[in-house]
Amino acid sequence: MTATRIGTGSGGPVAGTALRPRADDALAARLARSAAAPDGSWISTDDFADWLDGRRRAHHFKVERIPFAELDGWSFAEDTGNLVHRSGRFFSVEGLSVTVGEGPFRHWEQPIIRQPEVGILGLLAKEIDGVLHFLMQAKMEPGNRNLLQLSPTVQATRSNYTKVHKGADVKYLEYFTDPDRGRVAFDVLQSEHGSWFYRKANRNMLVEALDEVPHDPDFCWLTLGQIGELLRRDNVINMDSRTIVACFPMDGAEPGALLPDAAVQSWVTVERSRHDVSVERVPLAGIDGWERDEHSLGRPDGRFFKVVAVAVEAGSREVPGWSQPLLEPTGPAVAAFVVRRIGGVPHLLVSARAEAGFLDTIELGPTVQCDPGNWRDVQAPPFLDTVLAAAPERVLYEALHSEEGGRFLHAEIRYLFVEADETQAPLDPPPGFQWLTPGQLNDLAQHAHYVNVQARTLLACLNAGAARLDDVAAEGPDDAGAGQLDDEAAAGRAA
Amino acid sequence: MTATRIGTGSGGPVAGTALRPRADDALAARLARSAAAPDGSWISTDDFADWLDGRRRAHHFKVERIPFAELDGWSFAEDTGNLVHRSGRFFSVEGLSVTVGEGPFRHWEQPIIRQPEVGILGLLAKEIDGVLHFLMQAKMEPGNRNLLQLSPTVQATRSNYTKVHKGADVKYLEYFTDPDRGRVAFDVLQSEHGSWFYRKANRNMLVEALDEVPHDPDFCWLTLGQIGELLRRDNVINMDSRTIVACFPMDGAEPGALLPDAAVQSWVTVERSRHDVSVERVPLAGIDGWERDEHSLGRPDGRFFKVVAVAVEAGSREVPGWSQPLLEPTGPAVAAFVVRRIGGVPHLLVSARAEAGFLDTIELGPTVQCDPGNWRDVQAPPFLDTVLAAAPERVLYEALHSEEGGRFLHAEIRYLFVEADETQAPLDPPPGFQWLTPGQLNDLAQHAHYVNVQARTLLACLNAGAARLDDVAAEGPDDAGAGQLDDEAAAGRAA
Repeated sequence: MTATRIGTGSGGPVAGTALRPRADDALAARLARSAAAPDGSWISTDDFADWLDGRRRAHHFKVERIPFAELDGWSFAEDTGNLVHRSGRFFSVEGLSVTVGEGPFRHWEQPIIRQPEVGILGLLAKEIDGVLHFLMQAKMEPGNRNLLQLSPTVQATRSNYTKVHKGADVKYLEYFTDPDRGRVAFDVLQSEHGSWFYRKANRNMLVEALDEVPHDPDFCWLTLGQIGELLRRDNVINMDSRTIVACFPMDGAEPGALLPDAAVQSWVTVERSRHDVSVERVPLAGIDGWERDEHSLGRPDGRFFKVVAVAVEAGSREVPGWSQPLLEPTGPAVAAFVVRRIGGVPHLLVSARAEAGFLDTIELGPTVQCDPGNWRDVQAPPFLDTVLAAAPERVLYEALHSEEGGRFLHAEIRYLFVEADETQAPLDPPPGFQWLTPGQLNDLAQHAHYVNVQARTLLACLNAGAARLDDVAAEGPDDAGAGQLDDEAAAGRAA
Repeated sequence: MTATRIGTGSGGPVAGTALRPRADDALAARLARSAAAPDGSWISTDDFADWLDGRRRAHHFKVERIPFAELDGWSFAEDTGNLVHRSGRFFSVEGLSVTVGEGPFRHWEQPIIRQPEVGILGLLAKEIDGVLHFLMQAKMEPGNRNLLQLSPTVQATRSNYTKVHKGADVKYLEYFTDPDRGRVAFDVLQSEHGSWFYRKANRNMLVEALDEVPHDPDFCWLTLGQIGELLRRDNVINMDSRTIVACFPMDGAEPGALLPDAAVQSWVTVERSRHDVSVERVPLAGIDGWERDEHSLGRPDGRFFKVVAVAVEAGSREVPGWSQPLLEPTGPAVAAFVVRRIGGVPHLLVSARAEAGFLDTIELGPTVQCDPGNWRDVQAPPFLDTVLAAAPERVLYEALHSEEGGRFLHAEIRYLFVEADETQAPLDPPPGFQWLTPGQLNDLAQHAHYVNVQARTLLACLNAGAARLDDVAAEGPDDAGAGQLDDEAAAGRAA
């Protein structure tokens, strides 16, 4: 891994002026080696469940629903009705008025979480016995199923590291704020849930420690292969960990793709341009279709989500106890990539999703991403039936994972990879869909605002080897050109 | 150039499923060949000025300033004071309230152009005698110096192609809207001036024609080398042409860079995160610091720009005559890259610029970008003195170009590349600046929202060979590591 220290002059004039390779091929090889390691030097995968149970026993956690009136420090503002903290920081729940140009829902109002500051999701890496290990934290978040899941080394809002809530220091934070403490492998902004957050983005960072890392009992070192094994289990690897692993610059080593990269970019541009999405921040008070009682702000038709309040008791967070609002989705959702082998290479059917909270009109999401309950009276989204009705042998991966447990209550999504054929998922897909290779999606995840958070969870499953596409069937006649350039492309290159 | 048709199934199952290479190396080679062609098959560069004069004589153009009251179809809205067209389309001039966290100007209000629709800037390419030529249009824009400059094949707002102004069809538009008419080499969103436009982006497209292209007397075919020669002249190649040429995927073939690509991304992320920029759309009426009279909306202190109105008579536009508002900057501005050879490879000192109208906090701009007149009573921006006081032999490129003549009146910028040394521009630059190779900047221009429009003009000068950095001096001791990996990086790769 080459050094990526920034803005430091400590290398002296000669070291400072030498060239470095633009791409770090060695890192991709080291990540592949770690992904291929099913067991680690610090803890064996078989012992992990016991270790996590031990951490659960070591702390006291309790989360209970409370009426809004019992929130400490939070209240509905008199003028706007927005749900805000008295410090003016953390986050707020405000209103959003949305108008879109297509789909069964053309205009609506909704509550949305606004948190304009950019946080750090940081994972610390270290080579142990020649294999990269990653420092994961057993961390309680009030909205998590099972409360305790594996977070990255650091989850720090700007409030965290400027100490707004006057709690304990965030452990290991210095590796992500002091460029001399480690080597930054990557640091890239990524969006979070566009339907629930207004233009929220966090820095996703991987930093390699250069010296001994002090140990803390709530933390464990895992190989990427171990993270992959745990991603096959429900609700162990938290969302912040998954989104960082999605950004790992893996070497896809794919011989080609259905679409050249420039055509993928062109498709993204067309999708960004063709959607009319008009979004306006409005006061939370009186938004259309929503009603508030003592315990929740929700919809009489039961769709989408509710805003609720919880009180939290905990022994391992920055502060010993607190209360806060959480957004509680109505039902478990589904996020799935439909997969086909094209020209010998597995491809993912990617959708261009316009979510109201995105900074730019669309981001790339899974083939299917919805709570089926929300669509009960309207035409279901494309490919939902294909995913829900897939025969077991077509389901290449399936697990339940929790979304951000600091903001969402029991927001579980069933993540799947589902194999399909030409009748179910044609090579010439409907508008808003396109076939990309995992390598192409992984490359786009090196940049901000391309790959949405649900697609990143699925990408993390590929990067860590939790989901394997090796078994996707070849499709006979479709594979005639496997590994070859087609005549047209070959002619174009020769011209 | 490989085909990049999107969403068409016409190739049949076999062609449709064959793999294509993800990168189009052949296109880079063909662009390099065109850049190396100082003369073209359609017109010789020596004859170009006569051809352009001929087009000027063939049409009648007249632009004159008028009072706002004489604008046809445009007026200040009664409620907001915004300057709008009665159709509700084209664009509007509204108010913006801006608060930033650093710099001499922390809070201000200003007029800003709002045009939420995404337009197409499209350049058509065709191989003639084995060399790619590009179809440029001699086009009048009311704000251009000299009125007539070379635009790309197509400049189409969505109003254009949905015929809001009921004028003639936009010539050659079908190549950019019908995927079967040509091969899309690229199609990427790019921002425009962040200080004058609110979140404006256009599609920048290069399409290669597959068949005979009908000719029109206002159009000429030029090689990239000819475009480069014309970029050495003042006010010939218009802004829309320049921004497309900046997106050309050239093969930099640089042996390395001061910072690996991941470190560049990390720097961009830090810059995007660290700036506090708060922007609010407000009514134009009563914005602080601006006064309106019959002829203009401007500032008593004379800074920044005025909003004015013009009446246009023309024979070669979609409609024969019209009137419109234009934004008129106060003085000629300067946009310059400071250049140094580092490890044998020329590098550009790039700045992270927070402009109020950007979609995401910052984009990468030239080292210096300002109207020096606006900074007369405050501390000048970094490196301005280095650029303005550069000895002639240090100025590698210098020319005046007009910004978007359809929105800005005589908005000229003096574009420069200026060589500097360690005392003027240290390798460890101040916050907000970083050294990138031209290849790195060119790669970022393949994505939206990285490279601002002024930096793209300078990048176009490199891509077309108008500015050459071959002569940038080696710097003795600094170049000890030329072309080599430094020890630290080499050790990191071996680890």
